[in-house]
Amino acid sequence: MISPRIVVVGAGNVAWHLARRAHAQGLSVEQVFSRDPVKASNLATAIAAQPISVFDDLDVQADYYVLAVSDAAIGSVAAKMGERLPPSACVVHTSGATPLSVLQPHFERCGVLYPLQTFSKNREVDFSKVPICLETAQKEDYPGLEHLARRLSDQVYAVDSEKRQTLHLAAVFVNNFVNHLYSIGAALLNENDLPFALLQPLIQETAAKIQDHAPATMQTGPAVRGDQVTMERHRALLNTHPDLQQLYQFFSTAIQKHHH
Amino acid sequence: MISPRIVVVGAGNVAWHLARRAHAQGLSVEQVFSRDPVKASNLATAIAAQPISVFDDLDVQADYYVLAVSDAAIGSVAAKMGERLPPSACVVHTSGATPLSVLQPHFERCGVLYPLQTFSKNREVDFSKVPICLETAQKEDYPGLEHLARRLSDQVYAVDSEKRQTLHLAAVFVNNFVNHLYSIGAALLNENDLPFALLQPLIQETAAKIQDHAPATMQTGPAVRGDQVTMERHRALLNTHPDLQQLYQFFSTAIQKHHH
Repeated sequence: MISPRIVVVGAGNVAWHLARRAHAQGLSVEQVFSRDPVKASNLATAIAAQPISVFDDLDVQADYYVLAVSDAAIGSVAAKMGERLPPSACVVHTSGATPLSVLQPHFERCGVLYPLQTFSKNREVDFSKVPICLETAQKEDYPGLEHLARRLSDQVYAVDSEKRQTLHLAAVFVNNFVNHLYSIGAALLNENDLPFALLQPLIQETAAKIQDHAPATMQTGPAVRGDQVTMERHRALLNTHPDLQQLYQFFSTAIQKHHH
Repeated sequence: MISPRIVVVGAGNVAWHLARRAHAQGLSVEQVFSRDPVKASNLATAIAAQPISVFDDLDVQADYYVLAVSDAAIGSVAAKMGERLPPSACVVHTSGATPLSVLQPHFERCGVLYPLQTFSKNREVDFSKVPICLETAQKEDYPGLEHLARRLSDQVYAVDSEKRQTLHLAAVFVNNFVNHLYSIGAALLNENDLPFALLQPLIQETAAKIQDHAPATMQTGPAVRGDQVTMERHRALLNTHPDLQQLYQFFSTAIQKHHH
């Protein structure tokens, strides 16, 4: 099978990891678009692609246009691309939170390729293990997109817009909210002149445990034990932090409800 | 320096990991006490120690008595041991949540050796990286206990009872509450017939990121971006889960407050 020709629109974290993975896997990324010419050039240089900064320069003959731009920009970027590209162009976005329908007014052949991971520019990620969730507006386009996705990752799933939104919501709980709990832990230690290094192995092990076990079966702590003495002591320790006291109570009640 | 003679009281997860680590490091664990003779025997056999099930059988000449029993039992177990052991006995507990003062009515020479990790019997942990928090009632006892702890782990910290309680509270946030967020994520996926495997790499990477970076600097997601559209969509998705909707709102507000 001939390698598809890809244009990546965006030069943020997702674009950066996705485009470099595609290039490393021997896929041909032809162009990188970013309104910021420096960003376009930085990423394009890394993967031997052409940097472009105006939509008029878009290659009109690519097989896939991959939109890795902010959620809020997807609709307007798609509209601008629609003015330039032929009706046969296949355009996919990479957003967990955005329904496919945002692309449908502009392209008949559209889809979603959502890599479910948190990407940072300065951290390498093993892309072969990143789950990729796929959806296409037209059934005929699915096999081609799946073929492309399987070049990028071993973990490819068909997930429609409705389920993908719940998935993205669940990701907010286990990523954004979890990270905020890490911040709370760090702040409590900092107030007591204790180094955050004290909590790092625990955080690591807590995440490692649920790679093999359902999290509900791994629940420990005073709430699930019904240890009122410890919970009372903890609430007292949080007297000067009413917000955290409320959060502590909320979690303790929720854990007890969930497990009894 | 002569290896200290150790008696481990308890045969639960902490006792299991601690005693096996001590044995593997060439320390001599003489006895394992558990009221349940089978449990005492299982652990004692693994480390070539004597299993005992009544306090009358306690070796009265050990250098350290390590109490790895439930928080609620520490006081009563110490009282019973106090009837048997000489006043010179050095007794330490291993609890994060329990002040040293629980031991002080029973022993002059007492302390705390708190390994800050979540232990499961069926999971091996790299004990050399487990932070151990130490405290002794008498300053003279600290160097000896520190020497013992450094045989067990490379990460040894002096942490007094007050700070240790805050540390334990912080551990509840980053371990117990985080695990509950994992459970929520798993439940949301389960309702949509999506496999939990979709979230596992994200969970892993979220925990890995904060090994090198302060968690507050790693915060991502709709709340910190102020992305009202996505947050509104998420709240709507949680209409049938008022508890989760409330939790979602709580975290979103807290994250925005923390970062603006």
